[in-house]
Amino acid sequence: MEFKVATRGAIAPFIVMDVMRAANERAAQGGDVIHLEVGQPSGQAPTRVLAAARNALDGHGLGYTEALGLPQLRERIAGHYRHAYGVAVDPQNVAVTTGSSGAFLLAFLAAFDVGDRVAVAAPGYPAYRNILEALGIEVVAVPVGAASRWQLTVEVLEQVEGRLDGVVVASPSNPTGSMLSAHEVAELAAWCELKGIRLVSDEIYHGITYGAPAGTAAGAGGHALIVNSFSKYYAMTGWRLGWMVVPPDLLRAVECLAQNLFISPPTLSQIAAQAVFDCVEELDSRVAIYRANRDVLLNELPKAGFTRLAPSDGAFYLYADVAELTNDSAEFCRRMLTETGVACTPGMDFDPYQGHRTLRFSFAGATDDMVTAARRLQEWRR
Amino acid sequence: MEFKVATRGAIAPFIVMDVMRAANERAAQGGDVIHLEVGQPSGQAPTRVLAAARNALDGHGLGYTEALGLPQLRERIAGHYRHAYGVAVDPQNVAVTTGSSGAFLLAFLAAFDVGDRVAVAAPGYPAYRNILEALGIEVVAVPVGAASRWQLTVEVLEQVEGRLDGVVVASPSNPTGSMLSAHEVAELAAWCELKGIRLVSDEIYHGITYGAPAGTAAGAGGHALIVNSFSKYYAMTGWRLGWMVVPPDLLRAVECLAQNLFISPPTLSQIAAQAVFDCVEELDSRVAIYRANRDVLLNELPKAGFTRLAPSDGAFYLYADVAELTNDSAEFCRRMLTETGVACTPGMDFDPYQGHRTLRFSFAGATDDMVTAARRLQEWRR
Repeated sequence: MEFKVATRGAIAPFIVMDVMRAANERAAQGGDVIHLEVGQPSGQAPTRVLAAARNALDGHGLGYTEALGLPQLRERIAGHYRHAYGVAVDPQNVAVTTGSSGAFLLAFLAAFDVGDRVAVAAPGYPAYRNILEALGIEVVAVPVGAASRWQLTVEVLEQVEGRLDGVVVASPSNPTGSMLSAHEVAELAAWCELKGIRLVSDEIYHGITYGAPAGTAAGAGGHALIVNSFSKYYAMTGWRLGWMVVPPDLLRAVECLAQNLFISPPTLSQIAAQAVFDCVEELDSRVAIYRANRDVLLNELPKAGFTRLAPSDGAFYLYADVAELTNDSAEFCRRMLTETGVACTPGMDFDPYQGHRTLRFSFAGATDDMVTAARRLQEWRR
Repeated sequence: MEFKVATRGAIAPFIVMDVMRAANERAAQGGDVIHLEVGQPSGQAPTRVLAAARNALDGHGLGYTEALGLPQLRERIAGHYRHAYGVAVDPQNVAVTTGSSGAFLLAFLAAFDVGDRVAVAAPGYPAYRNILEALGIEVVAVPVGAASRWQLTVEVLEQVEGRLDGVVVASPSNPTGSMLSAHEVAELAAWCELKGIRLVSDEIYHGITYGAPAGTAAGAGGHALIVNSFSKYYAMTGWRLGWMVVPPDLLRAVECLAQNLFISPPTLSQIAAQAVFDCVEELDSRVAIYRANRDVLLNELPKAGFTRLAPSDGAFYLYADVAELTNDSAEFCRRMLTETGVACTPGMDFDPYQGHRTLRFSFAGATDDMVTAARRLQEWRR
């Protein structure tokens, strides 16, 4: 008997995860690997987070929480908007999620039906595209480049042909690290409100910025969804915790979907995360390391032939145009891993149009690793 | 401007989560609550699990894992099939998931397209129905009762009109606790193989049984998906960890979906869960408590007027037909909570046809709670 395989399972892999597996296999066989592929902070979560987790393990039990998360954590997150942006957010509109991944899934299901059209930037985070496709939503991949600082600005979106039901923006962006200014974020939010387009603002790299701080779309309008994460600035990656600020018209849908699709986010993570907002000093010292790493790569990578880099205003990525070096970035990255031990991510993950000639370096690791990686790449390209 | 709300966000709530919120609100206001609503073990995870978690917090960091989980954990899960069932499972076919919730989402997306028809038992676990609907899959809710021991047997499925693309079975079942025999599981798996129907076997209550042990559909055929969880027998509820045995033809789809929708399951949970397979004695002592709780309720609930109970062969549920007491089980449960402090779940969560006259008691809590709840209900119904 022939068994059917659903067509929507046939989405693209998140290539960086495949690279990571290849890198791990190399490491398991005794090879050394410098991980410039995965976008995650190295090292442990902040000290107070670990202490809170240990306390919880000594406590009474870790059962399910309410689907939208522990009320105390939702309060703390709402407080964060007050402190960090001066924006009022009702804790009732905060949904704690299983990573920002969980937030995107809930956001897309609650906001968009099969056949709806949602714009994403190319290059952009591949999971937007892949989740949207798995859910039957039409992805409108809008090419962006230096002219709009690799961002979906109002000007860029005005040029898109056909109806749009939604827009996903990320500032700072993965993979480019480029940012919209706070003014541009506000402008975009207002434009979406005016047009009836659902804005999904991915703000997971907020806090990791090297110039002006990032502006939030929270509080800017009545219909935007704001997604954030404890995995990047907050350095709680494997804890799988994120959050969303949900507009009132989608709140019950998000709650019902969360109840059914997730039951609740990881409880220990929710308890521990309450401590993370008191760890600003420790977290900012990590950002200082990212800044140092960025400086190393910005200085050294051009000497290895990686001369065309997008502006890394935030996050921990450098996006390189390597058209002068290869026309097959996947093969190029494989060769780089085999011959130098440096793992990085081919651009195809981020950009179906131009990704065969781009790649992403993540500089979330240790500064020594950046120095070593750069030296190896310089020797490799000599 | 009018903003659209997606129709697929309009799924039913997982009512038990709403009940839980009402119960928590009552508790927050100083009212006492006996939780017979939520299907989760009380107390902490097993001692060795907690020790492994503490160790990991003292370690080097908790980053992302590979999307299908830590290789060591996948090995241990495969070993579990060898030890517990005498069935060979390749670790490569094991996918660690974010709870069984994550497993169902991945299974349904990988196996079924929009418009496919999937049979579920009524009464049955509401999230099957609600996730399937959110994904545009047609739910064929098949009424089951005493004649088939509240299960989808081959005999029952033979009577379903129209094409079936999939079947979801659960033995032991939530909400009834009733079971298919190992022979019936094998028969069902063989029938699905013959008919080209994708079987999804929910085995999350395996290990919590009061007569014969549960039979697995793993190893029975080449196309079934087996879902299991660390939340029930293994008592790691809030850790949000489950697993799936994935047939070869769906493995890459499940991996790509997992990479994009989840990145990876919670890392600390994955590390700690490796210890849980060495905790059989501690876990079985919990099952002894469930058995004692079940005996209390089976003895005492009939004296409170709950006389028509489904056979609780496993899991920690008693499903009561309360047609003689009410025609509105939701209102009945609300009144029960207000007047006695005993929280339980109205049947509408499990059965759109008959749920207005049924309810589910969970006996996963402490035996003292069962005694107190039964006494209060007896006084209430006097």
